[in-house]
Amino acid sequence: MSGQRQERQCDGKTSIGQYLIHRLQDYGIGAVFGIPGDYVLAFYGMLEHSPLDVVGCTREDCAGFAADAYARLRGMGALCVTYCVGGLSVCNSVAGAFAEKSPIVVISGAPGLDERRSNPLLHHKVRDFRTQMDVFEKLCIAATELIDPLTAFSEIDRVLDAADRFKRPVYIELPRDMVHVVPPTAHSYRRPVSETSPDALAESIREATVRINAARKPIIIAGVEIHRFGLQETVLRLAEQTQIPIAATLLGKSVVRETHPLYVGVYEGAMGRAEVTQFVEESDCVLLLGTFMTDINLGIYTANLDVTKCIYATSEQLQISHHFYDSLPLEMFLQGLIASGLEPTRRTIPAELSVRARPPFVVDPEQPLQVSRMMPILNELLAKDNIVIADIGDSLFGATELVVHEQTDFLSPAYYTSMGFAVPATVGACVAKPDQRVVTICGDGAFQMTGSELSTIVRRGFAPIIIILDNHGYGTERFLHAGEWKYNDILPWNYHKLPEIYGAGRGYLVQTEGEFANALQSAWEDRSCVQIIQAKLAEGDASTTLLRLAERMSHSVERK
Amino acid sequence: MSGQRQERQCDGKTSIGQYLIHRLQDYGIGAVFGIPGDYVLAFYGMLEHSPLDVVGCTREDCAGFAADAYARLRGMGALCVTYCVGGLSVCNSVAGAFAEKSPIVVISGAPGLDERRSNPLLHHKVRDFRTQMDVFEKLCIAATELIDPLTAFSEIDRVLDAADRFKRPVYIELPRDMVHVVPPTAHSYRRPVSETSPDALAESIREATVRINAARKPIIIAGVEIHRFGLQETVLRLAEQTQIPIAATLLGKSVVRETHPLYVGVYEGAMGRAEVTQFVEESDCVLLLGTFMTDINLGIYTANLDVTKCIYATSEQLQISHHFYDSLPLEMFLQGLIASGLEPTRRTIPAELSVRARPPFVVDPEQPLQVSRMMPILNELLAKDNIVIADIGDSLFGATELVVHEQTDFLSPAYYTSMGFAVPATVGACVAKPDQRVVTICGDGAFQMTGSELSTIVRRGFAPIIIILDNHGYGTERFLHAGEWKYNDILPWNYHKLPEIYGAGRGYLVQTEGEFANALQSAWEDRSCVQIIQAKLAEGDASTTLLRLAERMSHSVERK
Repeated sequence: MSGQRQERQCDGKTSIGQYLIHRLQDYGIGAVFGIPGDYVLAFYGMLEHSPLDVVGCTREDCAGFAADAYARLRGMGALCVTYCVGGLSVCNSVAGAFAEKSPIVVISGAPGLDERRSNPLLHHKVRDFRTQMDVFEKLCIAATELIDPLTAFSEIDRVLDAADRFKRPVYIELPRDMVHVVPPTAHSYRRPVSETSPDALAESIREATVRINAARKPIIIAGVEIHRFGLQETVLRLAEQTQIPIAATLLGKSVVRETHPLYVGVYEGAMGRAEVTQFVEESDCVLLLGTFMTDINLGIYTANLDVTKCIYATSEQLQISHHFYDSLPLEMFLQGLIASGLEPTRRTIPAELSVRARPPFVVDPEQPLQVSRMMPILNELLAKDNIVIADIGDSLFGATELVVHEQTDFLSPAYYTSMGFAVPATVGACVAKPDQRVVTICGDGAFQMTGSELSTIVRRGFAPIIIILDNHGYGTERFLHAGEWKYNDILPWNYHKLPEIYGAGRGYLVQTEGEFANALQSAWEDRSCVQIIQAKLAEGDASTTLLRLAERMSHSVERK
Repeated sequence: MSGQRQERQCDGKTSIGQYLIHRLQDYGIGAVFGIPGDYVLAFYGMLEHSPLDVVGCTREDCAGFAADAYARLRGMGALCVTYCVGGLSVCNSVAGAFAEKSPIVVISGAPGLDERRSNPLLHHKVRDFRTQMDVFEKLCIAATELIDPLTAFSEIDRVLDAADRFKRPVYIELPRDMVHVVPPTAHSYRRPVSETSPDALAESIREATVRINAARKPIIIAGVEIHRFGLQETVLRLAEQTQIPIAATLLGKSVVRETHPLYVGVYEGAMGRAEVTQFVEESDCVLLLGTFMTDINLGIYTANLDVTKCIYATSEQLQISHHFYDSLPLEMFLQGLIASGLEPTRRTIPAELSVRARPPFVVDPEQPLQVSRMMPILNELLAKDNIVIADIGDSLFGATELVVHEQTDFLSPAYYTSMGFAVPATVGACVAKPDQRVVTICGDGAFQMTGSELSTIVRRGFAPIIIILDNHGYGTERFLHAGEWKYNDILPWNYHKLPEIYGAGRGYLVQTEGEFANALQSAWEDRSCVQIIQAKLAEGDASTTLLRLAERMSHSVERK
């Protein structure tokens, strides 16, 4: 990330725990999420006395989602948990961060090395003392156990560099008797420099430039990596210089601000808006920049892009037509394109793709609630200071219709699609960007998973708006698997009464468009506490996107 | 397990999914806990049409704890989740079941084999399609992917046999396009027979018999394996025949009914009741039967047992004094002892060890609530039809004072000590033993983790009594780490108002002994719905056991 410290000197008086805290701060980390436990109490004590904000959550997995959201907004996040009962509770959150390239640092306490002699049955142990490390090696891009004072500092450097370079989670296991150990050596950190072949880079840029200059209908599809690697301004510069229009993927939604004149919408094949799909697919030169070619991003493989017309650049590889260039940093490639003197195109963006062309939405007060009609109501209020967080299912599909005013202010686990991301991510977003107002859209099934994180929101005095789409069950699945299945039903809760449990907050129960619009307006104006809008959806409601997705995906469910 | 089917024939018309369902039933499994997701919907549909009860929970990890509790009460449990977002959410619950030998079958859906060609980025994928399998191989005693129709049935047999034999979790991954596949072969299952050396067995029994007959003060310490392997009646027969008194470990509490005349209490070294410790440690022949030598079971290594006086028999090994016998089944060893004509001992059990000698407890109505005084109040009501579930911390330490009337009716994660076990385990216990009344004791920190499982309790119409020990934080840790640490504080919730959220249940808020006794009495009498008693503890309250434990453990927290 920009602003990251390039080097650090150590004076021979710094303990392992202190060094770790310093190095987290070097990457812009200002808060650590987690839950204490006896194997990590010494380090927790050190954290509490450090400049880092220690954010206690109700559950470890929630702390993981919060750290993930924090990382998406601030460049890197951290969570700190105890051994096994804590660490093994964050596997799913960390896996999601791996899948979607969100760099979080997982710090776990562990039994002291001194205690482990003769392999005793210490509490929290699973199979042997390496079990947790074994698991996290599968879920992280780098992992280390700090068991040797002589290598501890360089190990910390190595895994944090990996998190920064690959934008993926890393794991640091800190035995409790190592926290205060001061390694008996001087240490200095210098950021490693990666090697690139200048000839390969030049060749790739020449080739891409020729293709782009020859194109009459070029388009950029910007993906989530553009955000993760902090390249939004670079991509915008490229687009503005060449006047190439920009679409985003679902996972990359808001990678550029959606009010930008060159922005044409989210591209998701046959699942998305037909006019966006047509505009993208008729292109004769598609610059896929930092996109993940996932099933959902590709509209369950309904995307119709001709590979011979594509320039596909990610942090891992550059592909032009059917051939590949390896080890070209995405940023250098983009900078090279900008410097190559591309000619501006004259491609016209149809008026219907512009968000400014949309007519104002008219509320029908008695109309039962439909997700697709709730989003325009929300759109009328969304402004520059809002962050939007969507859980999966129709929270996400509906939210694709929202216009996000600033870049990377839309968060959703749109690839890994883990239910229950939204409320804990709200905690992370509120901590990361305390001056912005968070608006969260969450299904009732997802809320039942992790809604207890409202507790942390209340405890911290945050005031997000949480909209619970209440269809008493796992709504998306009802459309995926034909038949009347009881397994999709859940208990109806009185979500709007939750402020009585947590001792703060304001709840609303709404069933019509008029009630929703009014509640939203009141919630918008009340910045004193968390606002919980329980939105009872019309029976059988589903967004158009969900219906299209369900039709594609349902074929796979009962494949025989 | 007793009653388990020894063989099964297959007619060549059974699909892989159907075979799995049949085989689960062979092990006495009548319910499957979990949450559906698209990669497992086909199997969920099959489950819903099967005789198995499909118990939807609010979260996957809760389903894991519920299945664990079900397994502890019924011999084996099962949970069924979707790929990665579901499976990786149960790592901690499964790890706990591994550590404490609770056999649960983890069934996970997965992308169809057909969909995986060319390694696409399907949603829920982490690193590659084997990531989840890699993780569960670390957390289970056996694991399989059902990717080949020709081996699927024998693979199912293999892992279920392992769960049964080792009493540990197993993992079965079922790609969604394999659910309906009918393998083109006949198949028959026959339970494998394990090999034992009759000479080694005879030698070990001779040696043990001589030692026991020579002893004047023998004692049995019964551990949790006696329950897991269904050997309670065998141990009781041995004890009654020889009149040897029985103690239990903390993890094994209630392995024999605690009202039995030979039962002397829970042994936990210097952490436990002094009279029990003395009675056990003055023994000249200690039969440790199926015990785990864990830190907590051993009173953080304050147990003072002379190995030369011990006969230590577990499912894995038999140790007499300093030497070992391998591969002797625990049951055969115990049966051998019973058949060997041991002479009855004449060891007298001191009156103060008998639960019947305890004077009735006198409630002091105005007294602020203390855990150690709440337990005797509860003891007055506990009867044969109660199951007691304790979360960790003072829920567990306090509950050691309870007298459990039937065997294995006390459940607690007393070794792995994962917070948040109790409420989901209540779901599992209610499903496993619908005719018994469950009484659950849970700290407020633990409740905030998994208390949402009240939702499932309400949905199913269960009526357990849930006592929340409210000390607004992680109470145990306050005693482990000297100093005033904010990280131990949590938001106070109005737990007693939760019935308003879930639409059923009865809540009580109590602060004095009188209020608690009255609430408990009312809760006891009301079997119509779940009873939630929010018990606000006196400031700084801690049981004697917790104080002793904290003193021992706190030395390790800040070890330098």
